[in-house]
Amino acid sequence: MDSRVAVAAIRRLERGSSHTDQDLVAVEAPLEVVVGSVAGGPARSLGMLMRTPGDDRDLVLGLLHSEGLIHARDDVASVTLTTSADRADLADVVLGRGVDLEQTIDGRALIGTSACGLCGRLAIEGIDALRGRRVAADEVVWDAAMIASLPAALRARQTVFAETGGLHAAGFFDRDGQLVALREDVGRHNAVDKLVGATLEIGGLPAPHLLLVVSGRVAYEIVQKAVMAGVSAVVAVGAPSSLAVDAARATGLTLIGFARDSRFNVYTGHGRVQATAARTARGTPAP
Amino acid sequence: MDSRVAVAAIRRLERGSSHTDQDLVAVEAPLEVVVGSVAGGPARSLGMLMRTPGDDRDLVLGLLHSEGLIHARDDVASVTLTTSADRADLADVVLGRGVDLEQTIDGRALIGTSACGLCGRLAIEGIDALRGRRVAADEVVWDAAMIASLPAALRARQTVFAETGGLHAAGFFDRDGQLVALREDVGRHNAVDKLVGATLEIGGLPAPHLLLVVSGRVAYEIVQKAVMAGVSAVVAVGAPSSLAVDAARATGLTLIGFARDSRFNVYTGHGRVQATAARTARGTPAP
Repeated sequence: MDSRVAVAAIRRLERGSSHTDQDLVAVEAPLEVVVGSVAGGPARSLGMLMRTPGDDRDLVLGLLHSEGLIHARDDVASVTLTTSADRADLADVVLGRGVDLEQTIDGRALIGTSACGLCGRLAIEGIDALRGRRVAADEVVWDAAMIASLPAALRARQTVFAETGGLHAAGFFDRDGQLVALREDVGRHNAVDKLVGATLEIGGLPAPHLLLVVSGRVAYEIVQKAVMAGVSAVVAVGAPSSLAVDAARATGLTLIGFARDSRFNVYTGHGRVQATAARTARGTPAP
Repeated sequence: MDSRVAVAAIRRLERGSSHTDQDLVAVEAPLEVVVGSVAGGPARSLGMLMRTPGDDRDLVLGLLHSEGLIHARDDVASVTLTTSADRADLADVVLGRGVDLEQTIDGRALIGTSACGLCGRLAIEGIDALRGRRVAADEVVWDAAMIASLPAALRARQTVFAETGGLHAAGFFDRDGQLVALREDVGRHNAVDKLVGATLEIGGLPAPHLLLVVSGRVAYEIVQKAVMAGVSAVVAVGAPSSLAVDAARATGLTLIGFARDSRFNVYTGHGRVQATAARTARGTPAP
């Protein structure tokens, strides 16, 4: 069976009747992340995160990238994954010579639950870290009709969600609305980190011509991960928070929320959104 | 205006048409938690959490209780809240003489995002901490029809969600299905912590005769908070994770998921769930 799904014996109750049944639930399990350097010196535990097993290498790479600990695939010399019946799974990361381990992780506490993945730096420090950043994608535009189609496209490809109802999804889409990659996890932040890690692995970051679609709401942390990955737009099925809007505006990210039923709201960066039908009505179809 | 809601200027796009509008978004803002002791010694920062402002005192009390740092209202001598335009809001907690600050928080990293609240102890340590615990509510039963009515009752009372679509809710209900207390937050864990803190404040914990209803999914952390609060059942509108089911089973908590449209699944502890109609049909109405 898929390692992301477990069977639970349940009782189903409906309008007075009750019967025994089985249900599939999304697996949540701990992963400890330890980071050392190829240059030597002691390895350090960044803490434990709760995640859905699978794509663990992508998860670790994406997490380190989202937190600004690494900037390129070459910053990581190796990731060794170990599974144990007795204790948490282990991801042993060795950073390359170009990364100063002490400076990089000193003072950080990276401990998390499945709701947040590894919770990185102090929030205020994170906001400061984003302050100087700008999304470098002035020329990129996104078609409105294509954007409206994305939530359904994401949902159609969520294989584990269909079985458990318990996983968040994150997907990268290109300008034609084609799905480039999708990852699922019980933690919404983990799903994005897995996606970012997989893209980093193939040399695909920064990715101004990709659009990040997430199945839930968007708080600050998702905007941070998107900006670090260099995408130009985030589309969420749910609502954004005030800080997500503020951070998106400050960095020039296009932030779209409530994308459902062929409607959506553009919170920031609406210059990148091309209203398809309006253009066609004026006789200027998109190229 | 309500401090939990902010106005965002947006563009609404629907089927080719586009217009400028305003939208209300849930506020997400940082709160630093510093803990000292009335016995003296240096105060220590537990880190920064992202939360929706309001009920901050409840949030801090509930968080400390959920993490096992305090066990009673008297364990806290004072909570002083300070708001600043320049930096994060501050909650300055002074623990009572009965609490050993160093032993209590040593080695813990409590730093979080709005998705998780403060992320406490290592996950594995948390599971170990729950292992000896049992929900002390063998005689408590919950009526199935009443349980089926709870998600709608919670939703009807979510005032900020109705405006923003961006807040999670957590509510305590009694055996008659009456709402005892409700809290909302951009972070699902924060909503539960606020609820727990408010109940601790009035001497209401442990609460075997209360049932916790949450608006989203249930991962491990929510089960931990419920068990620490001593409630006998958790009802979630969404799906549980595998670890949530495992932890609920190990502690004797009744865990119910997918509660919607008059249906629900009982994952653990179904002995506490009374199938109303079935009993009536057999001529044995509930007492």
